[in-house]
Amino acid sequence: MQERRFAIIGHRAKSNGKLNLNDLAGSGGRMDVLVRAINSALFLSHGIRKNTHITIHMMGGEGPPRRIWFDGAKVWGLHPDERAIAGQIGKIMVEPTPARGHWIEHQPGIWHSGGDLSVTLNEWDKEDVEIVKLDADAVAFSEQYNTSINNRIGFILSDDQPFTDEENKLLEQKSKSISLGKNWIQGHTAIGVVHHLLDTINDQ
Amino acid sequence: MQERRFAIIGHRAKSNGKLNLNDLAGSGGRMDVLVRAINSALFLSHGIRKNTHITIHMMGGEGPPRRIWFDGAKVWGLHPDERAIAGQIGKIMVEPTPARGHWIEHQPGIWHSGGDLSVTLNEWDKEDVEIVKLDADAVAFSEQYNTSINNRIGFILSDDQPFTDEENKLLEQKSKSISLGKNWIQGHTAIGVVHHLLDTINDQ
Repeated sequence: MQERRFAIIGHRAKSNGKLNLNDLAGSGGRMDVLVRAINSALFLSHGIRKNTHITIHMMGGEGPPRRIWFDGAKVWGLHPDERAIAGQIGKIMVEPTPARGHWIEHQPGIWHSGGDLSVTLNEWDKEDVEIVKLDADAVAFSEQYNTSINNRIGFILSDDQPFTDEENKLLEQKSKSISLGKNWIQGHTAIGVVHHLLDTINDQ
Repeated sequence: MQERRFAIIGHRAKSNGKLNLNDLAGSGGRMDVLVRAINSALFLSHGIRKNTHITIHMMGGEGPPRRIWFDGAKVWGLHPDERAIAGQIGKIMVEPTPARGHWIEHQPGIWHSGGDLSVTLNEWDKEDVEIVKLDADAVAFSEQYNTSINNRIGFILSDDQPFTDEENKLLEQKSKSISLGKNWIQGHTAIGVVHHLLDTINDQ
């Protein structure tokens, strides 16, 4: 089965401390954007996409940046609403951040680690993931992919802010760029569209 | 500009009384599903799709069913996170439900009315909307639509429950059925995919 990965960068998403579930967008640093990305990556109407992973990058607030990795094959008991997903993230945020690249399993299928995009790109590179940056200005998905897609493909998205210059430089080395259209759509919508396009190719 | 409409049926979504923003999925009757549909219908990463409307149908709880209509051309001050959108719905739920088909503007771009799917279908029919039921088992979107799409198109979705027999009977009379693929995807994801497919046709 094709393995699908998503990674989203939360440029000011709080990485440590108490997460206020009533204020994900404000004091959480647009944590709502990351939470919706998790929903759209993992959930079907009934059930979980077991072939899909998503790693959120929490780059804001105080303390070192943290990544949380949700593995659709193993996660269970997760509910799709924003507050429920954010509640799981909040439980992890009060734990010390592990070292860069050192993954600790917090509960089945949910891991966390220190590090940023550069670490994720190196990990994916070693694991033979075809890495794709989503970028409204790039070539269209349909021109790049038709019937042949790597069995292990990973998409990198930004939150409501564009990628930084440093991130773009890293991505140029490790990834190709693909567009889903001229509009700058929300991250979770982009994930839903990618699933649809890959599902359509796989259904053929 | 092409006008896009969405309508989603919340089969047990609470229609009247106090909405607990901390429990949208439980006591709200899967209100979270409707709220995410509103997000994906209206929001781009930055800004609102001004050509899009969405009407949620709150069929559960006590008291008469209620519909709330968000008009992307006029709504303002709406934030994309679930809690913020649900907060707007909660303010309306404590108001008396208007009569079937009688729309009252609660604030700019947000209206409410009594009635159910049959009333919405009659309204759309009179307004020359091409009505489309989203149904995983129907013919593919791409086979039905290529370059020619009615200027006023409206999509009907269910929440996490299938349409009732009565709803299916109404829809058979007034709509065609279109599939977005074999998976039963979440409602808000389906809305995001429809926008993508229509955007792609319009970009050509």
